[in-house]
Parts: sequence; structure tokens; C-alpha cells
Amino acid sequence: MNPIETLLDHKTIREFKPEPVPAELLQTLIDVSKRTASSQGLQAYSVIRITDPELKSAISKVASQEYIARMPELFIFIVDAYRNYCIGEEQHNATDVAYGGDTFFQGWTDACLAAQSLVVAAELNGLGTVFLGSILNDAPKTIELLGLPKYTFPVVGVGFGVPNVEPQLKPRIPTEYTLFENKYVAHEDYMELLKDYDAEMAEYYDTRNMNRKVDCFTKQVVTRFNNRRDVREQIGDQIRAQGFTI
Amino acid sequence: MNPIETLLDHKTIREFKPEPVPAELLQTLIDVSKRTASSQGLQAYSVIRITDPELKSAISKVASQEYIARMPELFIFIVDAYRNYCIGEEQHNATDVAYGGDTFFQGWTDACLAAQSLVVAAELNGLGTVFLGSILNDAPKTIELLGLPKYTFPVVGVGFGVPNVEPQLKPRIPTEYTLFENKYVAHEDYMELLKDYDAEMAEYYDTRNMNRKVDCFTKQVVTRFNNRRDVREQIGDQIRAQGFTI
Repeated sequence: MNPIETLLDHKTIREFKPEPVPAELLQTLIDVSKRTASSQGLQAYSVIRITDPELKSAISKVASQEYIARMPELFIFIVDAYRNYCIGEEQHNATDVAYGGDTFFQGWTDACLAAQSLVVAAELNGLGTVFLGSILNDAPKTIELLGLPKYTFPVVGVGFGVPNVEPQLKPRIPTEYTLFENKYVAHEDYMELLKDYDAEMAEYYDTRNMNRKVDCFTKQVVTRFNNRRDVREQIGDQIRAQGFTI
Repeated sequence: MNPIETLLDHKTIREFKPEPVPAELLQTLIDVSKRTASSQGLQAYSVIRITDPELKSAISKVASQEYIARMPELFIFIVDAYRNYCIGEEQHNATDVAYGGDTFFQGWTDACLAAQSLVVAAELNGLGTVFLGSILNDAPKTIELLGLPKYTFPVVGVGFGVPNVEPQLKPRIPTEYTLFENKYVAHEDYMELLKDYDAEMAEYYDTRNMNRKVDCFTKQVVTRFNNRRDVREQIGDQIRAQGFTI
């Protein structure tokens, strides 16, 4: 496959062969991720690579996903405004901007861009990847496990390795309802408009459970809305508890 | 260059040739971006493509970057929890989860991943790209210009086209201070540790002004901390004003 075909073939991989990612390839992926753009070049993010099996297991418990404990590689991307705060402090010049809302959200964006960059580089090298938003199931616990200081916050995990499954391509909402020209366009009859997409999704087998088909999309949305995860809903307070003024 | 070399050569491009991005290539980039992972598959983001020259010009004013008005392509990535809220409402099942903190932050992540995916696909096709965090210089104004409804929020812009400049590679903080194993590692002497990086950065010419070198990194941090942008600092309130409970 050429690189664009590889990207068009992106699927979440949750089961990997036990073999490790070769050190040289790992370094290349890290280098690609490091080269990603960051807001104003301030690089307000960091990455924690998890190699300790006990720690990996503890994170898999936070995420309620047992397969995380078996993943060859696990990287956690974090907002890191602490490093730049320290750089400012050393120069007696860390103002409240250091931990303000703008810094926080630009750091969150930096972390995501670097994570996606790592994922693309891994896929271009034949590896499989999974994003783990589930590290936020209990952000305070993740913060404790990783020893994160004030002015930092976990954003997303990325697991990767040699794929041991070949899932289907997961259908996407038709582009006409997600990409607009010049102005946002809202609809009042998505149930009707997304009928074909819903039908397509109902034929899809999720990588979480290969033995059963998933619900159609519009039902997935409602299921999500009725599955309130109280700790995750407190993310604003959790971010403020890390010292950010958002 | 092979695809990894292309990614390792990433530079921000702010000046483009006037030629348009061919329609077929544009569609490919959109398709790649659409294929990107999203949190729980909920695709809580959307994209606005700006083709109206007046609108582009108005956005360039928000961003205080005149070159934006001349960019061949400008895509604005937004958190979009409104579409899924509508889908829930049609089924009489849009709970407060629809516009809660978890939904908001996962939507922000979705938008960023899709944006980086577009950028990578563009670069693999020989185009140049620029991220525009500056659309948040005045988020309420951007929201007004794009006609964004409640439960949406602008995240980042991406400009792209055929490069008309060949900038230098911009130095990055050494990986040892941004990538940790198992636990975050803080230092107390970054000024000393980043001396070589500072020296390297002081030799770099920024794409914003090719005629003068930039400050060293540790000075850029302090300059940023002393350049408080009041409207941007209100991002938390701006997000809440869009209906999100964060």
C-alpha cells in the first residue's frame, strides 16, 4: 500500500503479537512525533512511556480494559505546562499565563497532534494502534500513577505494536454532515438522514467484541448519553485541581 | 523522500503559491482526515472549509495574520457535540452528558486528531501546512463568523497549499526532557540543561519573519508569559457560554 492507502485503511487495533517494537523503529516514531507542530512552538506537552508491567496493569484497571496490560507499547500524552512554568520561574518571570486557560488548551492540542503523529508513523511502518481516552476514566488516579506535578494533565494514551487482528473498516458519518462550506449547517432530521449510515454500522463488528455486531450509530449516541460516568464528568474540576485556571 | 522522511521534515509553511489544491487531491485529504480515530467512535467534531474570500479575510483579522486571507485552503476544526445532541433529542434522549465535560474534551481531542491527520496527508502529497491556533484570539467572533450553534466550539485552523517558501527545520527541546519512562521527571535547572537548545534556537529564522533570528527558547517562554492575551484567557467562560458544563 502507498502511504495514503495506509492512512485510508486506518483501524483501531486492540490485540497485538507479543513481539516488541524494535528499538530503532521506536526511536523513529518518537522522532516523528517530536517534529509535530506545537502552538507557538512552546511544546507544552510531554509523553510518558509505560514499560513497568505493574504500572501498565494499574493503568489498564483505570481504563477498565484488560488488554492494555498486554500491549507491547503504551505512551501517555499529557499537557505539560509545568516545564515552561519552571523555565519562567528560574527567570523570575512565571506569570499567571503559565497556568491559564490559553496555555492549558494549547497544551491539550499539542499533546493530541503529537499523539496522532505517532499513530500515523506507526501505521506507515505496519504497526497497529489504539487511542485510549479511557485513561481519563479516573484522571486523578492516572495523575497519581504517573507522578504528574501541578500544571500537567493526562490527555490520551496510545497503545501500539504488531497487529494480531484484522478488523473491518469502521463506517463513518457521511462527510456531507460533518464538513461544511463557510457556515455550520444543522439538520433537524438526522434519524432520517443517517438511515443508510445506521444500516452500515449495524453490519460492523467492533474490535472490542468480534462476536457481536454493534448498535447502529444513532442508538450508540443515546446509549452514551444514558451512561453517565461521574468521575469523567468532573474533568473541569480535575483540571483546576492541577492548578490550571480554566 | 519516503513518507517517514517527509514527516521528519515537517515545517510550518505560511506562504503558498496561488494555485489551488486540485479537487481530487482535496477529496483524498478529506477522506484521510475522516478516517481518523474518534473517541468511542462518536465523531464529536466537524470541519468548516472556508472558501468565501470575505470570510477568509475576516478570520485573518481575528487571527491577526494577514497571510491567512491569501491561503489556498483554510479548514477550521471544531468540537461538535451539537450534531449528536440533535440525534439524542430526536430520540427524546439527550441527557446532560450530551454537553458535559467529558463530551467536550473528547470532542476537542477528536478535532485535533483529524486536523493532524489532514496535515500529514497534505504533507505526504507535497503540500505545505500551517496550524492556526490564532482563530481563538477571539473565539466568540470566530463562533459568530462560522455560525456555530450551541454545543460547538472552534479548536484549530489548518491552512494548506503548494509551498512558496523553504524554511529551516525548527529545533525541538531534546527528547530526554519531554519523554519519560513510567514517571514524570521534573528538573530544577532547565536554564542550564537547555543551553545547547537555546543556542540552536537562536540560530533559527522563523517563518513569520525570515529577516531576523528568533529569541532563544527560554526567552520565548518568558516573552509569552508577559504577553497576556485577555480574550484568549477567557476560553473557559467562552466554552461554558456555548453550553458546555466544564
